[in-house]
Amino acid sequence: MKNIIFAFKDDVPKYKQIYEQFKLLIEQGKLNANEQLPSIRELAHSLQVSRNTTLMAYDQLVAEGYIRGEGRKGFFINELENLPFQVTLSSSNKNPSESSNPILIDFRPGAVDQKYFPLKTWRRLYNQALTLPESFLYGEPFGEVCLREQIAAYLLQSRGVKTDADSIIIGSSTQQMLINLGYILKGDFSSVIVENPGYDGAREAFKFHQFSFETVQVHETGADLSQLERMKSRLIYVTPSHHSPYGVSMSIQQRHTLIQWINKMKGYIIEDDYDSEFRYTQQPFPALASIDSARVIYLGNFSKSFLPGIRLSYMVLPQPLLNLYKKQFLYFESTTSILSQFTMAKFMESGEWSRHIKRMRLVYKQKMHYIVTELKKHLKENITIIGEQSGLYLLVKVGLNRSEDWLIQQASFYGVKVYPTSIYFVHNKTDNPIIKLGFTNLSFEDIQFGVSLLKKAWLEKTC
Amino acid sequence: MKNIIFAFKDDVPKYKQIYEQFKLLIEQGKLNANEQLPSIRELAHSLQVSRNTTLMAYDQLVAEGYIRGEGRKGFFINELENLPFQVTLSSSNKNPSESSNPILIDFRPGAVDQKYFPLKTWRRLYNQALTLPESFLYGEPFGEVCLREQIAAYLLQSRGVKTDADSIIIGSSTQQMLINLGYILKGDFSSVIVENPGYDGAREAFKFHQFSFETVQVHETGADLSQLERMKSRLIYVTPSHHSPYGVSMSIQQRHTLIQWINKMKGYIIEDDYDSEFRYTQQPFPALASIDSARVIYLGNFSKSFLPGIRLSYMVLPQPLLNLYKKQFLYFESTTSILSQFTMAKFMESGEWSRHIKRMRLVYKQKMHYIVTELKKHLKENITIIGEQSGLYLLVKVGLNRSEDWLIQQASFYGVKVYPTSIYFVHNKTDNPIIKLGFTNLSFEDIQFGVSLLKKAWLEKTC
Repeated sequence: MKNIIFAFKDDVPKYKQIYEQFKLLIEQGKLNANEQLPSIRELAHSLQVSRNTTLMAYDQLVAEGYIRGEGRKGFFINELENLPFQVTLSSSNKNPSESSNPILIDFRPGAVDQKYFPLKTWRRLYNQALTLPESFLYGEPFGEVCLREQIAAYLLQSRGVKTDADSIIIGSSTQQMLINLGYILKGDFSSVIVENPGYDGAREAFKFHQFSFETVQVHETGADLSQLERMKSRLIYVTPSHHSPYGVSMSIQQRHTLIQWINKMKGYIIEDDYDSEFRYTQQPFPALASIDSARVIYLGNFSKSFLPGIRLSYMVLPQPLLNLYKKQFLYFESTTSILSQFTMAKFMESGEWSRHIKRMRLVYKQKMHYIVTELKKHLKENITIIGEQSGLYLLVKVGLNRSEDWLIQQASFYGVKVYPTSIYFVHNKTDNPIIKLGFTNLSFEDIQFGVSLLKKAWLEKTC
Repeated sequence: MKNIIFAFKDDVPKYKQIYEQFKLLIEQGKLNANEQLPSIRELAHSLQVSRNTTLMAYDQLVAEGYIRGEGRKGFFINELENLPFQVTLSSSNKNPSESSNPILIDFRPGAVDQKYFPLKTWRRLYNQALTLPESFLYGEPFGEVCLREQIAAYLLQSRGVKTDADSIIIGSSTQQMLINLGYILKGDFSSVIVENPGYDGAREAFKFHQFSFETVQVHETGADLSQLERMKSRLIYVTPSHHSPYGVSMSIQQRHTLIQWINKMKGYIIEDDYDSEFRYTQQPFPALASIDSARVIYLGNFSKSFLPGIRLSYMVLPQPLLNLYKKQFLYFESTTSILSQFTMAKFMESGEWSRHIKRMRLVYKQKMHYIVTELKKHLKENITIIGEQSGLYLLVKVGLNRSEDWLIQQASFYGVKVYPTSIYFVHNKTDNPIIKLGFTNLSFEDIQFGVSLLKKAWLEKTC
């Protein structure tokens, strides 16, 4: 066999590169059927990799039928006709659009601005947490007390929610909390009212326990709560501070309507207060849980306001549910890193958390203002902007007689990644498509460039 | 009102200390009914705490009826007869035994030895992970590819399991993985075979989806697999490398029996390989998943071998289940910290992981040897030691005609915390009680002292 020269790339595991190189050479006919391959040991030596690496590459080639092992004699190339099937190693997570043009600007929602992350402080506090003896044990099943106390103090101060550490449960994501919550609620409740459109991830979590759905219609101007009277469910999932995806907030009258209705029904409101920190035009409205904590399950998280990858969420439970929850989940390990919990507790205690939120509110407010200005300048009357008063993304309703798919594909063709909103609708939406644009980790230049590309993508073809 | 002097303790939140102090003074009659309390502002000032702190303390006292607010006039003490009910703020997590003697030695299982934790390396790699742009996004729903690749390579090398990154799912705990797994299995399987005794946490997770149970009896000498033929279930949860709690390993013959049976039944084995790294007397036996990967769901974790608080687990799924799983959970966020995932991937890639495991195997082997020697020396023929060949704890069967409760209480009276095994039994156990002793984070001196206290606790009273 001729010498094969590999130039290993850094971002792909070596065994995969070896596997792919051999596969290519076999498919191109550059290696002949029944030709012997170098032994695992020889190949490892000549490529300066471990034997595991070459073994994994050969295993994959054997599994896919490109080569065969003949015991001690070694490995040989198969006839191409003998290939049983062609499987690729590529991940099923891969986004098909990534195979087209390279993405220049990604309006991805749910990212945070790395530039303003309090790197030094966080490192210092994490490093401290690593020296605590408690970090080397299994933690509290419902979350570390020090963090729950900080969250209780924060909720009182910023959201008007009066609670204590004992009533707070810490988990790793809103969906995971909803799954656990569903487990204790499903005995008394078989259906849940969700917003339409609304957060698809919550619906997925409710499906986990076979809840059936009723829907409250939400418009760009707000939710239609008059429908509640006709509904049978006594459980409702809402995003009152910042509707997902429309971005509207419930008025204080709507909040009171909801509270009165739930008291009449003797049910529960699940209030997902997922990004209430970022309201730009006025003070945040008080949480539903601050009006009536007996009938409201309050959900919060640190993904939007701090770091998605930290995986820290929490919920505040009314007493009867808290008792049920603690009984049910006493024998379950917490799913949340103790180190992240200790670090966040210290971060909050030191006041850094409040400072960080204030700083980021200003940063994101400026970016929101900038993207709105740019969109209006370039896309003019072709779009309507929705939800610019708060939150970490905005929506544009596009009036070009084009489908959501077309708008996304066309943007992608110009190197811009934008996001759909059709996934939030329980039934298909019929009028003009609405595109979701995140901007939090983009610079002003990125935003400007991205919007100018969107103009080209959406308008130049249609003009 | 007289001046109240507080000496704040560090480990209890200040609002709670203020609340408890007032409560005590009111209950003891040292503050009179209708006496006015200092205002929130005055109290905050005189105690040098924030107004939130005093507000929270007062809120709690109001909620429990000790005091009342009279608008702008301030807060006043209620008549004691007016108290509507007495609720305590104390956590329901609190262990009742903590109120007795102070714990001098805690034989807690599931802790790791802090002294040998690779603090500097971990810090360095975590700090690197914090600078990656990917750390500021939501991560892959099934875990970061770089970590899955490292786990695939590790499983091949150390457990003989041939898999690839695509077939691995990363989660935060074994129980959370079992809950998700149960969700995709419950359509085809309504019951599961578990070991008796066996890991109680797994049973709790299966209950989440109303699985019914059949049990395979496990003795100190091993599992009785002859019972399998009589069972109706086609799903079995086992701990073949290190039975929980007995510590026995399945022989290669038993492994083959299990594999043949599951192929006949066309079901699945869930193999929980939770601490296979720590086998002291011989090489670890190969995993079931290395014999037949088509019918085995393999579960592993980093809690036992690295750090419980990191909350990193994984499972390897056979192809049909993998397809189901990915379809079902595509819309669920990962529950695992991206930062921990990136750090662990780098830690494994650099070879530090293998070195750490080797080092800890030696450390724990010495500790296991030491505790066995001490127990034999002090408790002699009164105990039988079970499971000293591997793992991070051992069991002692105590032949003193005393109950498990008595043994635990008596130890606690002498300042030693030891753990029950009755929780692992599906039905109550009738013969001599078995006590679980972890030792991994105790020094040799601690072990010696702890065992000498156990001798006093268990033997001196009975002699």
